[in-house]
Parts: sequence; structure tokens; C-alpha cells
Amino acid sequence: MDSRLVTITAGASGSWRIDSDTAIRGPGLAPAAGLTVMAGDVLADTVVAWSLRGIASHPRYASRAQLDDLARRQPSLGRPTATRAALILIRKSATWWAMGQDERLAALGPASRHAEIGTRYLPAIARRLLHCRDLSAAEPFDFLTWFEFAPEDGPAFDRLCTELRATSEWEHVEREVDIRLRRD
Amino acid sequence: MDSRLVTITAGASGSWRIDSDTAIRGPGLAPAAGLTVMAGDVLADTVVAWSLRGIASHPRYASRAQLDDLARRQPSLGRPTATRAALILIRKSATWWAMGQDERLAALGPASRHAEIGTRYLPAIARRLLHCRDLSAAEPFDFLTWFEFAPEDGPAFDRLCTELRATSEWEHVEREVDIRLRRD
Repeated sequence: MDSRLVTITAGASGSWRIDSDTAIRGPGLAPAAGLTVMAGDVLADTVVAWSLRGIASHPRYASRAQLDDLARRQPSLGRPTATRAALILIRKSATWWAMGQDERLAALGPASRHAEIGTRYLPAIARRLLHCRDLSAAEPFDFLTWFEFAPEDGPAFDRLCTELRATSEWEHVEREVDIRLRRD
Repeated sequence: MDSRLVTITAGASGSWRIDSDTAIRGPGLAPAAGLTVMAGDVLADTVVAWSLRGIASHPRYASRAQLDDLARRQPSLGRPTATRAALILIRKSATWWAMGQDERLAALGPASRHAEIGTRYLPAIARRLLHCRDLSAAEPFDFLTWFEFAPEDGPAFDRLCTELRATSEWEHVEREVDIRLRRD
């Protein structure tokens, strides 16, 4: 069993109920009512609306100080109070992927603005980043990011999204889908 | 067909003949006489000594100037004169993979010494880097690097290896196997 690979499947039902599904940029996904996150490369045994796979990899851009802060303050997934979730699907441009590391760091902005924004919402919002790009040349997204939070932290999550979408990094996002979910 | 994935299989025969197989650090591999590099995730139809997979990914650490230099001077694989090859298998330490980007850049050394050394051997030595780490949690190596060169550039390739192994980056290499090959 390959613990790095995660499959997310959406269809008529699932362990999470889909509240909304918004195409922020580029085309959206087939409509679905429920979603399930599973470890491994899972072949769905029922008809599904869509299925996406990603890999939990090592940190790429976070500094040591940011990693230490995450280790101290980042909550784990599956907290009983975290009955709301979001799945943000991102594809960056070909230009982004052809960049040199110096260009990519410059595009990420001073002091890695993305990470700095994210850590301000700890420990309320749990996060798991999955990488898709290296799975195949035909993956529809580069990143799947899964977030979990309590219902009262929903407005904070909205602010987090607004702040990230205003960064210069987001100029390189050519497709984004924002899915909100709940469980009982 | 997934053009990013490459499978390298060694056994009694292959499109390249194995001249030597040296465990530089850590355990070596099962002995084999020949080796074949194939696109895709190939299930060998004969008994093989070993099989390794890797993914041709996007550049991680190279700067724009280095990428431009590579684009200008890096030769392609398969040159008729390049009848010698080397396959260097590398596994880095858990400490390396847990590093922050700032620590990893510092460990790579000033001006990314690794890339600077490599570009000095262009256009004589062609190179293709494959990433294994994200394929599964159980891959024996993190990187497979394939090199092709003419017989008269063999001594230059030896110098390249010596220079790289003397860098501070190599302190984080916990397993390395060096395989040399030829074709007619």
C-alpha cells in the first residue's frame, strides 16, 4: 500500500456532502453530491462523477522557520469539530513550470507570501497538499489542497482564499475549482 | 501512455551492456549483464535482476540563467557517437527531505554548485534526471540519473563524478550506485 498516493472520488454519495462547487477560473467539474478521500490508487467500484489523484510529497518552498511553526501549530485532519471542508484544485501555467528557481521564488513574492498567509489561519484550518503533476502528463490539475475547519471558521477560510487569490503567485494559476463540503 | 514515467530494467541482456556496477555508498544491486531504458511503466516479460522507475519532472533548483544555458548547450540523448553511458542511483537522507527550502539551498552550496559543475561538462555529456521519491514510499532510490557520452569523454565523466562527490550536497547522500555501460 502506497501511503503517499491519495484518491478523491466524487459521485452520488460520499463521506463528505458537497455544498458548493465553483469554477473560479477555467472549466469546472461534473456535478456531484458527495465526495470521499481514500488512501492509495483506488479504482471506484461504482459510477463516479470524477476521480482525482495526488501525492503527499515533501515540502518544497517552506523555510525551516515556517516548517517549525507548522509542526507546532498545524492541526491534524479528522478533528471531530472540523465538520466543514474545502477542496481547492489548482493548475498553474506552462510558464510557471518552465521557470528557474530564482524566477519561481520571485513570483512567490517576498518572504514566501503564500506560506505566511496560510500560517496566520493556524490552528483553525487544517491543510493537506497533494501534488498531481508528476503522476502523468495528462492530469487535469497540478495541486489538490484539502482543508478542514469548524463551521465557525468558515468566514476565516473565505478570507484565506481571498488573500491567496490576490497574491502575484495567483497570476500563474490558469485553472481553479473551489469545492465546499460538510459532514454530520 | 505516460511520457513522464521511465522504467529501467537490468538482466541477462539489454540494449546497453553493463561494464561495471559499483556500490559507492550503501548496498549495491543484484548483478546483471545488460540494461534497457523504456518509456512508461513496463512490466518485464522475462526474469530481471532489478527494475527501477523514475519520472522526468520539471526543474527544481536551476536558475533561469542555468536553464537558458542548458537549452543552448545540453545535447539530446541518443547521439550516434555517444556509445558510453552511466546510470547513477542516489538516495538522500531523511534529514535532507525534512529540510526547509532555505536549508536545502544552503546545503546545495553557493550558486548551486551542483548545476555549475554539470554545465562545465556540456555539450560532451548528455543527462536525464528521473525522480523516484514520489512514486511510492518504498522506492530504493530518490533519483536515477542517466548520462550518455562518447568513449573519449569517459575521463571527463569520471572527473564530473569526483567533483560532485566532493560537494557538501553529497554529505546528504546515504546510498549511491554507479553503473557504467556501453553499446556497439
